Amino acid sequence: MSTRSGDGAVGVGLIGFGTIGTGVARVLRQNRDVIAERLGFPLRLARIADLDTETDRGVDLDGIAFDADAQALIEDPEVEIVIELIGGYGAAKTFTLEAIQLGKSVVTANKALLAVHGKEIFEAAAKAGVDVAFEASVGGGIPVLRALREGLSANRILSVQGILNGTTNYVLTEMETTGEDFDVVLKRAQDLGYAEADPAFDVDGIDAAHKLSLLAAMAFGAEFDFEDIPTEGIRGLLPIDFELADELGYRIKMLGIAKDHNEGDEPRLEARVHPTMIPKQSLLASVDGSMNAVMIKGDAVGPTLYYGAGAGELPTASAVVSDLMELARELRRGASGRVPPLSYTRTAFKRKQLVPQCERRGRFYLRFSVPDEPGVLSILSSALGDKEIGIESVLQKGRGIATESVSVIVVTHPAPEGAVRDVLREIDAWPSVSAATHLIRIEEEE
Amino acid sequence: MSTRSGDGAVGVGLIGFGTIGTGVARVLRQNRDVIAERLGFPLRLARIADLDTETDRGVDLDGIAFDADAQALIEDPEVEIVIELIGGYGAAKTFTLEAIQLGKSVVTANKALLAVHGKEIFEAAAKAGVDVAFEASVGGGIPVLRALREGLSANRILSVQGILNGTTNYVLTEMETTGEDFDVVLKRAQDLGYAEADPAFDVDGIDAAHKLSLLAAMAFGAEFDFEDIPTEGIRGLLPIDFELADELGYRIKMLGIAKDHNEGDEPRLEARVHPTMIPKQSLLASVDGSMNAVMIKGDAVGPTLYYGAGAGELPTASAVVSDLMELARELRRGASGRVPPLSYTRTAFKRKQLVPQCERRGRFYLRFSVPDEPGVLSILSSALGDKEIGIESVLQKGRGIATESVSVIVVTHPAPEGAVRDVLREIDAWPSVSAATHLIRIEEEE
Repeated sequence: MSTRSGDGAVGVGLIGFGTIGTGVARVLRQNRDVIAERLGFPLRLARIADLDTETDRGVDLDGIAFDADAQALIEDPEVEIVIELIGGYGAAKTFTLEAIQLGKSVVTANKALLAVHGKEIFEAAAKAGVDVAFEASVGGGIPVLRALREGLSANRILSVQGILNGTTNYVLTEMETTGEDFDVVLKRAQDLGYAEADPAFDVDGIDAAHKLSLLAAMAFGAEFDFEDIPTEGIRGLLPIDFELADELGYRIKMLGIAKDHNEGDEPRLEARVHPTMIPKQSLLASVDGSMNAVMIKGDAVGPTLYYGAGAGELPTASAVVSDLMELARELRRGASGRVPPLSYTRTAFKRKQLVPQCERRGRFYLRFSVPDEPGVLSILSSALGDKEIGIESVLQKGRGIATESVSVIVVTHPAPEGAVRDVLREIDAWPSVSAATHLIRIEEEE
Repeated sequence: MSTRSGDGAVGVGLIGFGTIGTGVARVLRQNRDVIAERLGFPLRLARIADLDTETDRGVDLDGIAFDADAQALIEDPEVEIVIELIGGYGAAKTFTLEAIQLGKSVVTANKALLAVHGKEIFEAAAKAGVDVAFEASVGGGIPVLRALREGLSANRILSVQGILNGTTNYVLTEMETTGEDFDVVLKRAQDLGYAEADPAFDVDGIDAAHKLSLLAAMAFGAEFDFEDIPTEGIRGLLPIDFELADELGYRIKMLGIAKDHNEGDEPRLEARVHPTMIPKQSLLASVDGSMNAVMIKGDAVGPTLYYGAGAGELPTASAVVSDLMELARELRRGASGRVPPLSYTRTAFKRKQLVPQCERRGRFYLRFSVPDEPGVLSILSSALGDKEIGIESVLQKGRGIATESVSVIVVTHPAPEGAVRDVLREIDAWPSVSAATHLIRIEEEE
């Protein structure tokens, strides 16, 4: 290619010079030697574009063109691969598509963009014969997409489940350790910079759902609408839930879960995001603080797990620059498009319906807010029994949300979620019930 | 290529039709559809060679040529990629080199061959412009070499440590759970088929050292002699060690550990294999039974962990067939040799000295076999104190190996291993000491 510099370097352009972008520039500089020793040629950060050209990022920018003109960066012949790190759906999409149309491969960490507009972007890339790499978009620095796309490619994937959001895992770990309320812990997480000022994206599960939708598409070759993934956040959890989970032998983790359902005529897919009680001794239960982990089960390999930092400047930059190195190798070998971005070739994708939540069968932890009166337990039991929902254990501890009520906890035998929801709707309508019953799904080790 | 069949299939030849070979044939058949949907073309197992052509492996061999002639298989123009699964250093080496010389890429699970003759084989492959893939040789089905080679390629790797041998991990887990002696547990493992009739390769740490030497070479671009890795097996462990480890907050795991040492003038490398006490709450401590796990720390990504089945027919076949798919993609794209097999380009490899064990600084668990007499503790303490080895705690429990003696356990403060070894040599020479002192290294979470 005419744009190659004398040392055979591959020229790179970076759009978005925030936290992750700074990490990328830092890693490219501090590991310049090992990167070249692995590739056989260097990477050269030729150009950076960001609206903020004033703030000092503390990185040496010697020899790097830096201005606010992303358009010029994309068109610069010295830029052979574009890194998109501005986030969001607007300009990020425009720049990504423009780079692709100019025949340039793109590295991105933008899960939201790919979860919502992935189809359009991947089709454009296939048409242009370039790659879109996005390891950093799921699990931060953990090379989990690579495992799914290549390391386990011989397998029929059976399930994927993981702790996909570091902020929620940090909040849950703190609530469990300190016994404090959600609001208190969230406030502290915000003060420490672990949570955003508007935490909804994280604590309501949207970020985890974006990541799960990418994992599920890659695992099962499934096409479905991101919006259809049932998603439940962690705002409803109380300190008492952690206390009782511990007594029952569980820990509470926010999980994204996807399973393939091939029984019956039409292929279906289970995908859901919610707080989950999992056995204490499971590996996922040991993943604390802001760390992430993903368990992938294949028909040949069995269960495998991938663990590491799910966010942060340098861990995320690790994934971005490793992707960059893969795309640079492919560019130099003329092998762009070697592996389909979502693991399956485009024609192999199948539209799959999501299994409705009400069909899921499992055990449930139910926290009822009921009057502190004798007889309340037998009324609850018979209401559940009437719908053939078996009770495994009953616990009562501390006070509920309303001061005149108590929390009564029922752990059910395995039951269909639909039936459980029906009884809860009934019970929650009773005048004596002071707050909506809180339900937490229990997942056993498989 | 003239040998392509009409459907664009890549033709594969399998040498060695034992347990893993059978798994490979099974996975290629049962996952034929997903393999083709991911590659965009099918894989065709064209030919199998094994000296035993009689035993029924329970796999459909329809359309596959099967005889005892490995030589003919390698030369068969329908075989574009060769899978070597016969093990050992002899015929395996010959066939691998012959395939390479004929311009055919090779997939192998043979860690012993690569640990000892890797240099020669990789050089031949580079010269011939073909690939040698060996994911199955470390960690069974876990795609950990791929993580090291590509997923974390942006990082300067700081350390690699892992549970690399399923048999020893099974034995340790059983000893801990049942309180039984090593011999009893080993016998049961052999009866169940989890351990070989000659268990030395596993329980003496040789297999783990083979795997560690591949990991260390890939992690640090280091050249060194496999034989130099200090390797200690698990035969010396007693049930009391597990009991006391538990009291001290540790579990005992057989670890392979490698760290880069770049201080000073000459680059050095720490690599060692031995039973290790690690904190109970660490992720590696939760890896039980025959499962494997590897923790890799990079300067950008921080700690990451990879977990899964380290052996077995289908998990190992998962790695072999996933490698096969990568090589098939590269073959069709003319991109063989895209990634150097040991992660660094050949010219980047540096000869590194191994750090002698005596230089390692850490805490030690010392089990003394001493007479059950008052005053023995103060004599031990002053012997240790004379060499400036601080004592953190002392435990005495149960009886030692000789019936007239007891086990006294000392946990030291951090000290250089050389100094500790010096005192032990002295103490073990005392007439009253009934058996050599047993030393277990303690590794803290980093």
